[in-house]
Amino acid sequence: MAADRGADGGPKEEPAVAFRRVRVRTERLAAPLSAEDQQLQAMPEASPVKWHRAHTTWFFETFLLAPRGVPIFNPSWGVLFNSYYEALGPRHARPQRGLLSRPSMDEITAWRQHVDRHVIDLLRTDTGRVPDVVALLALGLAHEEQHQELMLTDLLAAFARNPLAPIYSASFKSPPPCSDEPVQWQHHEGGVMHLGAAEGSTFTFDNERPQHRVFLQPFMLARSLVTVRTWASFAVDGGYHTPSLWLAEGIDWVRANNIQAPAYTHREGLAVTVYGLAGTREADPDEPILHLSYYEADALATWLGARLPTEAEWEVCVRAQGNDMQQLYDSAWQWTRSSYAPYPGFRSAAGAIGEYNGKFMVNQQVLRGGSLYTPVGHSRASYRNFWPAATRFQASGLRLARDVV
Amino acid sequence: MAADRGADGGPKEEPAVAFRRVRVRTERLAAPLSAEDQQLQAMPEASPVKWHRAHTTWFFETFLLAPRGVPIFNPSWGVLFNSYYEALGPRHARPQRGLLSRPSMDEITAWRQHVDRHVIDLLRTDTGRVPDVVALLALGLAHEEQHQELMLTDLLAAFARNPLAPIYSASFKSPPPCSDEPVQWQHHEGGVMHLGAAEGSTFTFDNERPQHRVFLQPFMLARSLVTVRTWASFAVDGGYHTPSLWLAEGIDWVRANNIQAPAYTHREGLAVTVYGLAGTREADPDEPILHLSYYEADALATWLGARLPTEAEWEVCVRAQGNDMQQLYDSAWQWTRSSYAPYPGFRSAAGAIGEYNGKFMVNQQVLRGGSLYTPVGHSRASYRNFWPAATRFQASGLRLARDVV
Amino acid sequence: MAADRGADGGPKEEPAVAFRRVRVRTERLAAPLSAEDQQLQAMPEASPVKWHRAHTTWFFETFLLAPRGVPIFNPSWGVLFNSYYEALGPRHARPQRGLLSRPSMDEITAWRQHVDRHVIDLLRTDTGRVPDVVALLALGLAHEEQHQELMLTDLLAAFARNPLAPIYSASFKSPPPCSDEPVQWQHHEGGVMHLGAAEGSTFTFDNERPQHRVFLQPFMLARSLVTVRTWASFAVDGGYHTPSLWLAEGIDWVRANNIQAPAYTHREGLAVTVYGLAGTREADPDEPILHLSYYEADALATWLGARLPTEAEWEVCVRAQGNDMQQLYDSAWQWTRSSYAPYPGFRSAAGAIGEYNGKFMVNQQVLRGGSLYTPVGHSRASYRNFWPAATRFQASGLRLARDVV
Amino acid sequence: MAADRGADGGPKEEPAVAFRRVRVRTERLAAPLSAEDQQLQAMPEASPVKWHRAHTTWFFETFLLAPRGVPIFNPSWGVLFNSYYEALGPRHARPQRGLLSRPSMDEITAWRQHVDRHVIDLLRTDTGRVPDVVALLALGLAHEEQHQELMLTDLLAAFARNPLAPIYSASFKSPPPCSDEPVQWQHHEGGVMHLGAAEGSTFTFDNERPQHRVFLQPFMLARSLVTVRTWASFAVDGGYHTPSLWLAEGIDWVRANNIQAPAYTHREGLAVTVYGLAGTREADPDEPILHLSYYEADALATWLGARLPTEAEWEVCVRAQGNDMQQLYDSAWQWTRSSYAPYPGFRSAAGAIGEYNGKFMVNQQVLRGGSLYTPVGHSRASYRNFWPAATRFQASGLRLARDVV
Repeated sequence: MAADRGADGGPKEEPAVAFRRVRVRTERLAAPLSAEDQQLQAMPEASPVKWHRAHTTWFFETFLLAPRGVPIFNPSWGVLFNSYYEALGPRHARPQRGLLSRPSMDEITAWRQHVDRHVIDLLRTDTGRVPDVVALLALGLAHEEQHQELMLTDLLAAFARNPLAPIYSASFKSPPPCSDEPVQWQHHEGGVMHLGAAEGSTFTFDNERPQHRVFLQPFMLARSLVTVRTWASFAVDGGYHTPSLWLAEGIDWVRANNIQAPAYTHREGLAVTVYGLAGTREADPDEPILHLSYYEADALATWLGARLPTEAEWEVCVRAQGNDMQQLYDSAWQWTRSSYAPYPGFRSAAGAIGEYNGKFMVNQQVLRGGSLYTPVGHSRASYRNFWPAATRFQASGLRLARDVV
Repeated sequence: MAADRGADGGPKEEPAVAFRRVRVRTERLAAPLSAEDQQLQAMPEASPVKWHRAHTTWFFETFLLAPRGVPIFNPSWGVLFNSYYEALGPRHARPQRGLLSRPSMDEITAWRQHVDRHVIDLLRTDTGRVPDVVALLALGLAHEEQHQELMLTDLLAAFARNPLAPIYSASFKSPPPCSDEPVQWQHHEGGVMHLGAAEGSTFTFDNERPQHRVFLQPFMLARSLVTVRTWASFAVDGGYHTPSLWLAEGIDWVRANNIQAPAYTHREGLAVTVYGLAGTREADPDEPILHLSYYEADALATWLGARLPTEAEWEVCVRAQGNDMQQLYDSAWQWTRSSYAPYPGFRSAAGAIGEYNGKFMVNQQVLRGGSLYTPVGHSRASYRNFWPAATRFQASGLRLARDVV
Repeated sequence: MAADRGADGGPKEEPAVAFRRVRVRTERLAAPLSAEDQQLQAMPEASPVKWHRAHTTWFFETFLLAPRGVPIFNPSWGVLFNSYYEALGPRHARPQRGLLSRPSMDEITAWRQHVDRHVIDLLRTDTGRVPDVVALLALGLAHEEQHQELMLTDLLAAFARNPLAPIYSASFKSPPPCSDEPVQWQHHEGGVMHLGAAEGSTFTFDNERPQHRVFLQPFMLARSLVTVRTWASFAVDGGYHTPSLWLAEGIDWVRANNIQAPAYTHREGLAVTVYGLAGTREADPDEPILHLSYYEADALATWLGARLPTEAEWEVCVRAQGNDMQQLYDSAWQWTRSSYAPYPGFRSAAGAIGEYNGKFMVNQQVLRGGSLYTPVGHSRASYRNFWPAATRFQASGLRLARDVV
Repeated sequence: MAADRGADGGPKEEPAVAFRRVRVRTERLAAPLSAEDQQLQAMPEASPVKWHRAHTTWFFETFLLAPRGVPIFNPSWGVLFNSYYEALGPRHARPQRGLLSRPSMDEITAWRQHVDRHVIDLLRTDTGRVPDVVALLALGLAHEEQHQELMLTDLLAAFARNPLAPIYSASFKSPPPCSDEPVQWQHHEGGVMHLGAAEGSTFTFDNERPQHRVFLQPFMLARSLVTVRTWASFAVDGGYHTPSLWLAEGIDWVRANNIQAPAYTHREGLAVTVYGLAGTREADPDEPILHLSYYEADALATWLGARLPTEAEWEVCVRAQGNDMQQLYDSAWQWTRSSYAPYPGFRSAAGAIGEYNGKFMVNQQVLRGGSLYTPVGHSRASYRNFWPAATRFQASGLRLARDVV
C-alpha cells in the first residue's frame, strides 16, 4: 500500500546493501557542508552535523562491533558521542556539542570509513545472518535515518541564526502545494480497530508495538494539510492575539516569546516568505504551512472549527484510505492531540538499547507521517514521532480532524 | 455505590442548603488562620487562603449575581480575583497574589457575607428554579470545593517554608494506613467499556463528558496504595540514583533539584518523618506515601515491576470493583499515565465559563480518586484531576497497575 | 553646621532617651499598618515591615542583651531574623521573609517590649556607662534608623504591586520643590582635602572612617537636584532610546526591562504622575525626580552635558558650602560615580559586628545625602549609602557636577 | 624604564612597519588552529578566533578605509563584525558569534589581505602622515593587540569544555615562577602623586588620561605575585568555606557555582594541576596562581592579612620602583580594589570611536600589568584593564598590598 511505504514490499534488500545505502546517504547529505558548517549547534536540543555523523557511527561501533571484539577506534571519543544512554556511562553535556572542534570533521570521516569496513566484514561472514546482528543492524539504520532528518533540521536552525541567510543547496525541495478549499474530508465510521505494528519481518520501533485494539468514535480527517494561505488568514484575523483560540500554555508561550508566525516564516499582510535550506523565497499560498508549534497547530484548528486528530484516528484512517490522501509523508509531520505514551503491553528492550524510546514518554506530543526532510522509505503508517509542544524547528504541520455528529 | 460517592443518592439536597453547606465549610477551614496566615503564597502556582476565599466569591458574583443585576460589591476588585478567565479582561499577576494586603481578610469576609445573602435571595425567588441558575450554582459549588482543597495544600506549601513548622490543627487527619504485602490485585478482563460521566441529574464537570466507549486490554489494579515502607525501601535501594528506573525528564528533574524524597518527607534509613497540617510526625510504615511527583510515581512503579494505570483502567475497575478497593478517595490522588486530553466529542461551554477545563489540556497528567484534603462528597469515579508531572504539593500517591499476560 | 545635622550639637542626648526615641519612632511608623500590610515582601531585596521590626530587636537582643546574660525571648526565632551575619549561624532565606506568618505581628510587638524593658534596665545600671555598651547602643540605634527608612521604601515597593494603589498615609510628605533654571553651581577649587569622619564623640559608621586626605581637581556641584520637568524633557527628547547617552550596561538594562520612566513614575508628554506613600498624585514639575537607577542618573547627566559627582566632591563641597545648597538630606539620595570601596586604612570590627559594612564593598555605587524617607538626624556629610546600579526602590535622585576647565 | 615598556623608546617604528608587525602576529597566533577551532565560542563573553580576526579587520575598514573612499569588501558583513558600536547600527547578537560558519575562515583571510593591502597603500601616500590617520592606525593596532590576547583566552575557555583537553601548542609558555617567602614588600611613602598618562607622542588609550594628581597614604606593594603554593594552603585551610574571608557577593558566588579552585585549576591536597594552551600539567608551587576571580583574589588577600592595591598605588609604585619588582607584565593581570571609573577630566572621543572605553565604566574592577597572553610591548604602567568581578577566563592574579601604620 502506497500509504504504508516503509512496510511494503518489493524484493527484500540485503543487509549489507541497506547498510551501504544508508551510510552513503548520510555522507551525501553532509557533502555540501564545510567543516565549519558541520560544527554548528543552534541550541541545546539541536546537534552539529559532525556530531550526528559521529554519533550514528558510535552506535554501530558500540552495539554491533564492540561486543564482537572489534577494537574501539578511539576510546576517548565514547563520552563525546553517546547521546543519552545512561547505561553506557557519562556523557558530554548536550548543549556543548558545538564546542567540539576536535575530533575534526576529517577524523570523523576516517572513523566512519573504519566502522563501515568492519560492519561490512561482519556481514560478509556467517555472523551476518544471525538474528541479533540483523536486528541490531536494522535498528542502527533506522536510527541513522532519523539522524539524517535531524542533520537537516538542526542545520536549518543554525543557518537561520546567521544574518547572511546561508544556502545549503539552491535546489533543495519545497513541500508540494495542494489546496482543498473547502477542506475535503475522509470519513471513518470508527469502531474497534487495530493500532500499531504487528510483529513481523519488517523493521519497526518498539514504540509502535504491540499491535492492539482501540475503540474509535466516527471521525473525519482532512485529505491534505492546512496551507500557507489559511494560516495567513488566521494571522491577519488576529489569531495570535485571541486568547480564546489557544491553550492556556499556548497563549503564555505566544506572549513570552512574542510569537507572530511559525519558525522561519515572515508575513506582510497575506504575503508570506519562508527561509529554508534553499534560502529565502516567497511561499506558494497553496503549500502547507510548516514549522508550527503544537500550540499554533491547536489554535489554528480551533479557529477553523476543527481539531487535531488523535494518533489512532490518523493511523486507522491512513491505513484504510491512505491512497485517497495527500501530503502524508513528504511535507510535514502532523501534530496529533495524543501525548506520547506506551501502547498497552509495551516493553522496553533490556540494557542500553532499551533506552531508545520508552524513557521519553512524558510531556511530548505524537506527530504522524513524515516531512520533506524525512528519508524516503523511513516512514510508515504506524510510525510515531514525538516532540515537546513548543517545538518548531522540525517541519511540523497540521492535518485537521472533526467529530462526526 | 460507595466507590462512586459523589454520583449517588440519598434525598436530593436543596440548592440553598447545598450553597450554605459549602460556603460555611470554606469559612470553617479558614477559621484557625490569622490574617497573616491567610495571606501566604509559597510559589506562583499556589494562592493565599484569603485569595481563595475571595476568588470563589468573585465567581458567584460574576457569573450568577452580576448578570441578574445585583450590583458589584467593589468593582475594583475584579482584576484581583479573576483567576484565569481571559474573556473577563486583565488579571493581577498570579505570582503576586501574596502581595495583596488590601483588601483585608475582614473585607473579604464582609464580601462573602454580602454575596451569600444575595445568592440566597436569588434562590428564594422562583428564579432559583430556572435551569441555568441551578447549573451555575452547582458549578460554583464544585468550584469552591476544589478551592477548599487548594486552600489546604497551598497553605501547607507556605507553612513548610517556615522553619518554625507551624501547625494548622493538631488534630488534622492523617491518611489511613493499609498495607497489602504482597500487593493484592483486582483483575479486569478489559473489552469495550464505557468511560466518562453520562448526562444526568448529578453535577459533573465538562471534562468528564461525554461518556464514550473505549477498548481495554486485560489488566490488574492494586487494591491499595503504595506505602511509606515500600517507598523507603526504594530509596534505600538507591532508587533516586538509578537512571534506568526513571523517565529521562524525571532523572533530570531529580538531579537538577537534588530530590531525595517526596515533598514534606524526610528519611533516615527506613524511618520516615512527614510534615503536614498537624505538624511533623513519624510516619506509619503502612500509610500511603504522599506528595510524589509523577516522575517519582513512575520510577517507583518501575522498581516494583509494575506500571501506572491509565485513567480508563482506573475508572472502569473502580466502577466494577470499587467496593473491594481501598484508599480510593480519602488518601491521595493517584497518578495515571494518561495525559489530560479531551474526551471524544468534548465541547467547551461558550463564553468565560468555557475556559474552565479545556484550555489546560496539554502537558498535564490525569490523577484519579481524591485525597485527605478533598471535601467528602466531591469525589466520584469519573472525576479527572490534572497536574504537571513535577507537581508535589498536592497529596499525590501511587496505585499500581499491571498487564495481564 | 546645618548641612551636617547628624554630627552636631545641642546638648548630648542620654542613651536611654535616645533608645526610647528611636524605638518608639519605629512603632509609630508601623502603626498605620495592618498585620497583613506588615507581612508584605515585594522582592528578594526588600523585607516585610514586621521583619524589620523583629530584626532590629534581634540586633539588640543578640549583641547587647545576650552577652550580658539576659535570656533569649524565643531561641527559635534567631534563624528567622538574622539578616546576613554569617558568624551567627544559618539564616532563613531572604526571599522568603514574606512567608513568615508566624511569629505574628503581635508576638513581635511583645518581643519588642520585652527587649525594650531589658535594655532600659541595662542602661539604668552603671553598666550603661561602660564604653562598649554605649557604642553598641549607638550602633544599634543607627542600625534601627536605617531600617526605619527601609520599612517605608520596602512597603512602597509592595504597595506598588497592588492595583488598588494603597495609601499608607494621605498626609505623607512629598519632596520639596526647588528649581534652579539655569542650574546654579557651587564652585570648589579642589586641592588636598579631608574626606571622612574623624574619630570622636559622635557616632559614625566604620565605613566613614578613617578620615584621610584626597586630592581633588576644581569642580562645580549643582545647588539643587534635577527636577521632574528636566527629566520629562529628557524622556520626551528620546532619552531612553538614545544609546550614546547611556553606559553599555545601562542601555542593556533599559531594553531588557522596557524602562520608560523611574520607578513609580508615569508620564504622558510632559505631565508626570507619581505614586508614593500618600497615593498617586500629579508631580510638581519643580520637585526633584526620584527613584532613578544609577544608569538613568548617569544618562540624564550626560544629556545635560554634566556628570555625576564623586563622593569626595560631594562631601567636601557640602562641608564647605552646604549652607548655600538645597535638598541635601530631605529629598533624594544622590548617586555618585564612586563605587563603594574601603577608605585607606579601613578596618572592620572583629566578630559578627564587623560584617556590618565591609563585606558589601563591590559592585555598589555610593549615594550621598538623605531622602524624604530618612529619619531626621540620621544624615551627615560623611554618611555613605550604597546600592547596586539598577536599584530604584530607594528615593534616589541626581545632583549634577561638572569639571572646571 | 623597563617597567614601563610600552611607553619607551628606541627608534620610533614606522606606521607601515608597525601595521605589518601586528597584523602578521594575529595570523601567526591563529596559524595552529583549524577552521573548526577558529569557530569555537565557549560563552557569550568570549568570541571565536575567526571573529576576532574579522572584527579587527572590520575596525580598520570602517574607521580608516571607508571614510577615505575605499569600497567595503563585503557590505553584508558589517552587522556580523561590529562588536558594540551602537552608533554604527545593528549588530549580530554576541552570544551567537559561534554560529557564523559563513563567512568561512578562508574568506576572512582574504578579507584581511585585502584590507592590509589598502591600508599599506594608504600609508604609502602622503595621507599616511596626516595626524588622524596616524592616530587611528595606532588605535587600531592597540585594539588588535587587545584582541590577540582575547583570541588566546577565549580559545582556552572553549578548549577547556572539550573532554579531550586539546593542545594549542605544546611549547606554549608558562608563567615564570618566583617565590618570595616571606613576602618582600616595596614601600612607598605616598603623598600627592601623578596618575595616568601624559599627552604625548606615545599611544595611550583615552581611559589612561588625563594625567592628574592624587593623594596617597603610605603603602606597601608585594614584589611578586601570590603563588600556587600559597593559594593551595588557603584552599587546604578551608578558605572556600570560610565566609568571614569573603565579600558577601563573593561567598554567594562560591556557593552558587560550587567553586573550589580558580578556573582551569585542579587540586589534590597541595598538589595542583593546571590546564592551559599547552595542555594539562603539574603546576610549579612557585609559579603565580592564575585565573582568580576578583572575589577569590580578595578573599586570598584577606586570609594573608593583606589587601588588594588600588590602581593608583600600583601605578605610582611601579613607576617609582618597577625595576625592583617582578611579574609586572608577563604573568597575570593584577586585580585592584579600584572600580573602573573615568579619571577627572576624562572626555570620550566624538562619534563611534568614543564608545571605546567610557561606556563600560560601571561594575567592573581595574586590573593592572599584563599577562602571559598579552603581546610584548602592549603593556605600560598607566594601562587600565577591566573586567567584572566574577571573571576568571583571563589570566588574572594577585599582587598584595598593605597599609603602612
